[in-house]
Amino acid sequence: MSTSKKLYEGKAKILYTTDDPNILLTIFKDDATAFNAQKRGTIVGKGRINCKVSSHLLQRLEQTGIPTHFIDSPEEGQMRVKAVQIIPLEVVVRNIAAGSLCRQTGIAVGTPLLPPLVEFYYKNDDLGDPLLTMDRLRVMNLATAERVEELRRLALAVNTELTNFFQHCGITLVDFKLEFGLDAQQHLLLADEISPDTCRLWDQAEPDAKKRVMDKDRFRHDLGNVEAAYQQVLNRVLAQMG
Amino acid sequence: MSTSKKLYEGKAKILYTTDDPNILLTIFKDDATAFNAQKRGTIVGKGRINCKVSSHLLQRLEQTGIPTHFIDSPEEGQMRVKAVQIIPLEVVVRNIAAGSLCRQTGIAVGTPLLPPLVEFYYKNDDLGDPLLTMDRLRVMNLATAERVEELRRLALAVNTELTNFFQHCGITLVDFKLEFGLDAQQHLLLADEISPDTCRLWDQAEPDAKKRVMDKDRFRHDLGNVEAAYQQVLNRVLAQMG
Ligand SMILES: Nc1ncnc2c1ncn2[C@@H]1O[C@H](COP(=O)(O)OP(=O)(O)O)[C@@H](O)[C@H]1O
Ligand SMILES: Nc1ncnc2c1ncn2[C@@H]1O[C@H](COP(=O)(O)OP(=O)(O)O)[C@@H](O)[C@H]1O
Ligand SMILES: [Mg+2]
Ligand SMILES: [Mg+2]
Repeated sequence: MSTSKKLYEGKAKILYTTDDPNILLTIFKDDATAFNAQKRGTIVGKGRINCKVSSHLLQRLEQTGIPTHFIDSPEEGQMRVKAVQIIPLEVVVRNIAAGSLCRQTGIAVGTPLLPPLVEFYYKNDDLGDPLLTMDRLRVMNLATAERVEELRRLALAVNTELTNFFQHCGITLVDFKLEFGLDAQQHLLLADEISPDTCRLWDQAEPDAKKRVMDKDRFRHDLGNVEAAYQQVLNRVLAQMG
Repeated sequence: MSTSKKLYEGKAKILYTTDDPNILLTIFKDDATAFNAQKRGTIVGKGRINCKVSSHLLQRLEQTGIPTHFIDSPEEGQMRVKAVQIIPLEVVVRNIAAGSLCRQTGIAVGTPLLPPLVEFYYKNDDLGDPLLTMDRLRVMNLATAERVEELRRLALAVNTELTNFFQHCGITLVDFKLEFGLDAQQHLLLADEISPDTCRLWDQAEPDAKKRVMDKDRFRHDLGNVEAAYQQVLNRVLAQMG
């Protein structure tokens, strides 16, 4: 007899338990939020698209030797994952300056960042996911220094792989956010999702700064054609996976 | 013939040129601002007090081998300083968690920080003096990696000296902000002021969390008796200098 209960409902996904305590079922929602959930809306088809994009990318990363939580996608919009204890850090890799980095520092949007920036944010909605320095990370005991270096290495490895992959899709990977967790055996796994919700993706065929945006910034800044952009990302990912 | 023109009027001080291009005259004002100048007011006697406290502390630091911009105080509320090109960084040293650190991270006020935190903020009122990571500092070209390490070393040396000094005054040095600059010969000097405007100072004889505050937090959080607290800091500094 199959028992399943809702474990957590987040802004973009719902987690359900399964018969196996080491496995969770993730349902991807069409709900969209931005600016720490001050802005809310719906992107029709997003759940299905993000699940597919994420599934493909996580599988691809797994193949290149990066351990992920991905198991399979039993149905559209659903992903089975290995249950982990999420480390409450958002690990952000930036190849090109955009978003909060530019708002906060005055660095011009589009400035290339080489080597890429790896930034750590405290995953805490009440505090608005604040940026952390290495010192603050240490004081907050969110991760050991060794763990932080491991996360940095993994994030950069993911960046190399994804930048290359999206390049073949004609898409520039501007920046993205990762989450990691520890499974029951204390193995570190790349978790959560990798999708137009969590990446900034610019269409290389489109020079116009507004038209090129293929990610959640279309929703954040009311650029229109949000659904079409998400679908376009999926189409290119699928074409590339062959 | 003495010529002097106003070079810059800031939130707390006015800078005047002097006959010597390498020397500036600083006039300390009674004006007080907080929360990026959203809150404004007057603290009667502050200019005179901060000038005196600053003069004593900068002289003391100079004696212990830390190069500062301090020359002399020709009159009450006035300080002659070596003209420098200010590095647009606020270097903050924290011995105990308080203020924005706690608001941003959720770390409890009063948490001891050992080793002390050295934090760099971009001195830019328009951007609200944002906290910088080492990576952001690098990308913004605000200082070389070597300069940053030099600033960190100097800030920690200042902290050791001031913590010890205030300890003898019965005052806990919770945190403080420093500014540095380069003189015409490219020598790095500790500049600006060190006063109850730029330090958090807690009276060790006073266990009550509101009563113990001897610094600008009395103004920031409307704790009352602002002038008396500033005067008390000066009295203890003077008594200690002997
Ligand atoms: N493999 C996993 N095991 C447990 N929790 C996970 C796993 N992958 C992701 N999560 C967590 O599940 C939640 C996903 O839902 P989401 O809507 O993104 O939530 P949030 O609003 O907190 O970002 C997130 O809190 C994420 O950290
Ligand atoms: N020795 C110096 N030479 C040149 N500028 C200095 C020196 N010491 C401090 N300053 C600058 O003078 C200004 C002092 O005025 P203040 O009211 O504190 O300004 P602000 O509102 O910018 O903090 C600051 O901008 C500070 O960086
Ligand atoms: Mg999420
Ligand atoms: Mg100032």
